[in-house]
Amino acid sequence: MSWRICRCAAGTVVALAFFLLPTVAGAQSFDFDTGNAAFEVTVPAVVPAFLEVSPGLNDATLVLRFTTLTTNAWFDAIAPYHPTAVGVYSHLGRRPPHERTDRNRNIALLYATYHVFNSLFPHRADDWRQMLLAVGLDPDDDRTNVSSPIGIGNRAGKAIVAAREHDGMNQLGDEGGRLYNRQPYADTTGYQPVNTAYELVDPSRWQPLLVPDRLGIFRIQQFVTPQLAVTRPYSYDDPSIFSSPPPVDSSPASPGYQTQADEVLAASAALTDHQKMSAEFFDNKIGSLGGVDFFLLADRGLSLEEFVFLDFLTQFAAFDAAIATWNEKTRHDAVRPVTAIGYLYGDAPVTAWGGPGRGTVSDLPANQWRSYLTTADHPEYPSGSTCFCTAHAQAARRFLGSDELGWSVPVPQGSSRVEPGVTPATDIVLEWSTWSEFEQQCGQSRLWGGVHFQAAIDAAHALCTSVADTAYEFIQWHIEGKRGPRP
Amino acid sequence: MSWRICRCAAGTVVALAFFLLPTVAGAQSFDFDTGNAAFEVTVPAVVPAFLEVSPGLNDATLVLRFTTLTTNAWFDAIAPYHPTAVGVYSHLGRRPPHERTDRNRNIALLYATYHVFNSLFPHRADDWRQMLLAVGLDPDDDRTNVSSPIGIGNRAGKAIVAAREHDGMNQLGDEGGRLYNRQPYADTTGYQPVNTAYELVDPSRWQPLLVPDRLGIFRIQQFVTPQLAVTRPYSYDDPSIFSSPPPVDSSPASPGYQTQADEVLAASAALTDHQKMSAEFFDNKIGSLGGVDFFLLADRGLSLEEFVFLDFLTQFAAFDAAIATWNEKTRHDAVRPVTAIGYLYGDAPVTAWGGPGRGTVSDLPANQWRSYLTTADHPEYPSGSTCFCTAHAQAARRFLGSDELGWSVPVPQGSSRVEPGVTPATDIVLEWSTWSEFEQQCGQSRLWGGVHFQAAIDAAHALCTSVADTAYEFIQWHIEGKRGPRP
Repeated sequence: MSWRICRCAAGTVVALAFFLLPTVAGAQSFDFDTGNAAFEVTVPAVVPAFLEVSPGLNDATLVLRFTTLTTNAWFDAIAPYHPTAVGVYSHLGRRPPHERTDRNRNIALLYATYHVFNSLFPHRADDWRQMLLAVGLDPDDDRTNVSSPIGIGNRAGKAIVAAREHDGMNQLGDEGGRLYNRQPYADTTGYQPVNTAYELVDPSRWQPLLVPDRLGIFRIQQFVTPQLAVTRPYSYDDPSIFSSPPPVDSSPASPGYQTQADEVLAASAALTDHQKMSAEFFDNKIGSLGGVDFFLLADRGLSLEEFVFLDFLTQFAAFDAAIATWNEKTRHDAVRPVTAIGYLYGDAPVTAWGGPGRGTVSDLPANQWRSYLTTADHPEYPSGSTCFCTAHAQAARRFLGSDELGWSVPVPQGSSRVEPGVTPATDIVLEWSTWSEFEQQCGQSRLWGGVHFQAAIDAAHALCTSVADTAYEFIQWHIEGKRGPRP
Repeated sequence: MSWRICRCAAGTVVALAFFLLPTVAGAQSFDFDTGNAAFEVTVPAVVPAFLEVSPGLNDATLVLRFTTLTTNAWFDAIAPYHPTAVGVYSHLGRRPPHERTDRNRNIALLYATYHVFNSLFPHRADDWRQMLLAVGLDPDDDRTNVSSPIGIGNRAGKAIVAAREHDGMNQLGDEGGRLYNRQPYADTTGYQPVNTAYELVDPSRWQPLLVPDRLGIFRIQQFVTPQLAVTRPYSYDDPSIFSSPPPVDSSPASPGYQTQADEVLAASAALTDHQKMSAEFFDNKIGSLGGVDFFLLADRGLSLEEFVFLDFLTQFAAFDAAIATWNEKTRHDAVRPVTAIGYLYGDAPVTAWGGPGRGTVSDLPANQWRSYLTTADHPEYPSGSTCFCTAHAQAARRFLGSDELGWSVPVPQGSSRVEPGVTPATDIVLEWSTWSEFEQQCGQSRLWGGVHFQAAIDAAHALCTSVADTAYEFIQWHIEGKRGPRP
């Protein structure tokens, strides 16, 4: 795995290293009685697959799907070993108290995860076999009797696969009846931007950008997975029950159009090392939103069961919030800062960050400005990343019953991906004493990164707090083992 | 370097292995008196940089630029050691007979290449230093006196860099006066397609395709380097002196529109293993067009000087032919087969290759058809790859004075990149007894690959034979050391 990690620039390594390094070593001598196979075995096994799909771990709609289905496998596999819990996609009865051991939970969740990984990443089937073989389990053991944790795991995993392979995300590329040359995750909604990369027809609407790919090769953005808006959520039925006010300042008719663009330029001109590294940190969804749960595992001494409950909740809360957000992104189809700035100022000089290693400059032609973070391939409003942080924070806050967090992440000198070797100028530490600070910094980092207006951050915060509350009710319902319609 | 090679699928490994493997080993004990530093030292050093830009080595406009400037460095560096030759971008006088040794030629071309590599791939500066250090040369030796081969090499290399960094290709990303956030190789011509990926406004014109990138990530094609049409050629001034007849069958008003689309479908339905592997072989420009020159080096026992003359000629002949072809591609802006087939037949069933491992099927909805080769990101007419093979073949034929070739390439079972493990079903051999066979198979392989109509192949053959004749006159002029206006 070493070269895959090496290919990520330094920032990713930093964000990943703190949970990867001890884990990979641990898998070789995994202790079923006292260990946590979710964290120690499945996470290090799957990270290379995540990196293959999303080298910056910032393609959030895909990364969130992977983490949600993975943690769903853990949850459904261990539910039968809890006094009351039931799985989301399988109801396998209740195992007697003497079977409620971490050994059984670990075995069950490994088999469940094995099936989910094979569904999500079938081209890596050998990796998933090896994941089980490395801890002494037989990937060909297909028993289904619930008296064995292997049977529990097989049934729980297969039920999730059956429920989620055709949930609207077009994971297999066959939705709409495609028989040949399947295109996994291709749009099924027929989304078309009103602007092209070449012509800004409507400066209030999203414009796909012409972006460099490899040296000399350019590509035009395509809205990533618009069909997320019609994907089946976990905790509610219809995403339109969650909505954001229209982004009125995204219309050039509003005086706020220029005001909010100027606010992005001012933030770009005033970037601190702390802001730059915060922006990079929160852009990496595994390092930030995976990382914080792994931190809690160690810091709070969570049991296997507590960790699984918390991690599944925070992941599907963000997943469900993403569905609502994508529904709103499609509806508002709002312009990104880089487009608005070019529209407003053309080649007139502005004061802003002048690009990697250039610092703040005052003679920057506006249409040569770039956002510190890469502007993602979807409409601007509401902010997706703010949403995911908010949903995660609110879900964790409710589950843990406290706003306290107390996490800090050291960031070595020069470890920036955007300005490698240069930023930060000295070793710094990112720290959040509360979940409120965490979500607030995450949201503002999208403004610092130049990829969102303030309104999109504020809207996402409101929207996704609501979704997280719904998600929390959903997990409680399943932990308490209730049936029938939810309240 | 091993992981980079591994990341290419099997087909590339096959095509590269025959010249890479012995070469890398040889560099460590390079013999300046009897060796060929161009082939043994610079080629293995630069291949990783090529692969970084073009993992399939099929982004022809970029790959050709790299090979042309590299071989130009070799040529200009050794010209002073020839009785009459003069460099293209430096006239460094004539060295006396006792200095006309391969030791001096090797040293001179290594320094010249060092400067060109630093210009083309500045982010790999450490690699280029290492290239010289590995054979005992000092990358910091910046002498410029022509009595030393180091001075010859430094001056020859720097002159090429000075002449080519602003030749119209926008290599540095600063053409048009861009000061900040340079975009190397970005279009400077303002090309805009009339069709979008979403809407076919004019079925005679090129449509950028929506193509999968990484799993779940899609992108829209952008015409690759339209500014190649306004880049300065070596051997002529104005590309409009070379032209192709209009592609009349690319208009839906012509009955030929359907006929030529049906011809592509029929070829797709009848694909043999030999055709599939020929298509893959010629798609890789280093394996095919680099490889054939490396074959000649060994097979004909070419001297260092003969090899450099031949390889520079064949590369810039294709480079100059590419400029004329890009000028015509822009002018005709013609539709690709995949677009025409979808336009003609929609979701009606056709008989064709059904995708990797599916063989020929008769119930394939036309708009689910895919070309065996990836359809490249530029308009269809004339065929670029046919052009490059033709120019290469014609230039080599004239230089060598014979149509004889006699090259064969073994292709192991299952080494296909498109159908790994499956195609070819048995070990096969691709072989070409003459240059005429080589260029003819290369051209037809674009029809087999589903990416071109026959008319584009025929047009490219005519167009690029003419350019190659002009290129041959240009190299003769420089080998004979003539000055003043060319005839």
